[in-house]
This record gives sequence, C-alpha cells and structure tokens, in this order.
Amino acid sequence: VTIRPSALDPAIARRLRRNDAGLFPAVAQQYDTGEVLMLGWMDDEALHRTLTTGRATYWSRSRAEYWVKGETSGHRQWVRSVALDCDGDTVLVRVDQVGPACHTGTRTCFDGNLLPTVTVEAADTARPRDLSGAA
Amino acid sequence: VTIRPSALDPAIARRLRRNDAGLFPAVAQQYDTGEVLMLGWMDDEALHRTLTTGRATYWSRSRAEYWVKGETSGHRQWVRSVALDCDGDTVLVRVDQVGPACHTGTRTCFDGNLLPTVTVEAADTARPRDLSGAA
Repeated sequence: VTIRPSALDPAIARRLRRNDAGLFPAVAQQYDTGEVLMLGWMDDEALHRTLTTGRATYWSRSRAEYWVKGETSGHRQWVRSVALDCDGDTVLVRVDQVGPACHTGTRTCFDGNLLPTVTVEAADTARPRDLSGAA
Repeated sequence: VTIRPSALDPAIARRLRRNDAGLFPAVAQQYDTGEVLMLGWMDDEALHRTLTTGRATYWSRSRAEYWVKGETSGHRQWVRSVALDCDGDTVLVRVDQVGPACHTGTRTCFDGNLLPTVTVEAADTARPRDLSGAA
C-alpha cells in the first residue's frame, strides 16, 4: 500500500484501511436532504484537507492530483461532518452542495441512471414459502 | 481487470468500470430516510443478483464469496432501486434495511465514528476576503 506523506492526525491515520494505491472511497451526501451526491476517492492528505479547510477535497485518480470540489466549477461542497465507517475503509462526508454535484450538470451523479430492478416486498418473502397453497 | 463470468445483462456490463479485481463500490442507502447504511463491493454477478432477486448481494473481499446481506444475521436489505453513476464506476442501492446494517449492531456503519471537522459557513467565504475590513 502506498501511503503518501500527510499532515493527517496520526490517530486518525492509524484507523484507516486503504487500497493498494493508498486510497479509500468517500461518499458525499447532502447533509439536510440525504441525497447521495457522488463517490470520490481520498488519500490521507485529502482527508486531512477535508477535515481542516471546510471544503471537500478528493484525490483525482485520472489527473493524479488533489481536487478541491467546485474549485473550477463553483459547485463547492461545504463540509458539515465526516464519519469513518466501522472498519475504517470508507468515509461519509456530509456537505452542503452548491449547485449540481455532477460534472454532467445533474444534481447527483446517480440521477437518470436507474437500472431495471426486480422489487420484492419484504412481507411477501417473510412468509414461509411452503405455507403458500400447501396443506 | 478480472471480469468473472456473469449473467448480468451485457448492455449493463458494458457500462461498468471496475477496479483491477473486477469490483466496484456499492453504496447502500435506506430508501425513505436517506441514511447511508454502508458501502460494499460488487462484481458483475453480485449486481446481477441484486437486480434480479430483490436482495442486496455483495462480493465479500475477505471471504472471496458472494454475500447476500442478512442471510445469516436476518438483517436483510430489500432492494427498492439501483442506479449507476455518471461514469459507471459506482452503484447506489436504495434498500429497505431490516434492523441494523452494521455488523457491530449500529443502524449504519458510520454511526458513532465522527471525525473532528472544521466547518466553514458557505456565506462567510462566499464574501470576497479582501472586502473584510479593507477600504
């Protein structure tokens, strides 16, 4: 695992589990509506900047550089809270998103991309199968 | 990139961008409250099963096997919708989560793990810095 030098609090860094590139996924969520806006990637330093600057900062895998969300577009993410998950390999960043989060211009990166899904009602299957129509 | 054989619709498979292990992150969100519950990993077949069985199914990286969420714990995830993101490398699975999503017993995997965060009010910094106190 590549861990780049960072000013991140060592107590937090010790809790992180990173992929081979030293990165972990960061889920950005609108703090009040609950919308899942996008998923980005962070390394230790991106997390440090996110925690200390008030602006969500990611590591761009395509450009191999830090990416302060909204720096060019103006579609900034103002950080409200950051939580680590139970095993330290994902962060949830609650933000106040200015404008669209997605570079395509939609509010979230998941808008308009629904996949065909079979939906089963929990109540239907909670009933044991062998009772339906059987003696 | 490892792409395991799968019954996933080829039209969907063509839109996916996977990591070197053939996996992509799946964010699970409670469909009505908006809570981000957890992040899991899927391959093509896990996504296929998630789309067609009504139950969220992940690829367990530690056990190297498919993992039908709640199969042993009873804390099932009933799928309500699945969306792909703009560049095809993340899915958002909206579910009805039975009980706690986290193996630690908390509702979400992010509960109780807040990191210390500096919060900047958007309004404060939207105001040009050089106007504050300057002529």
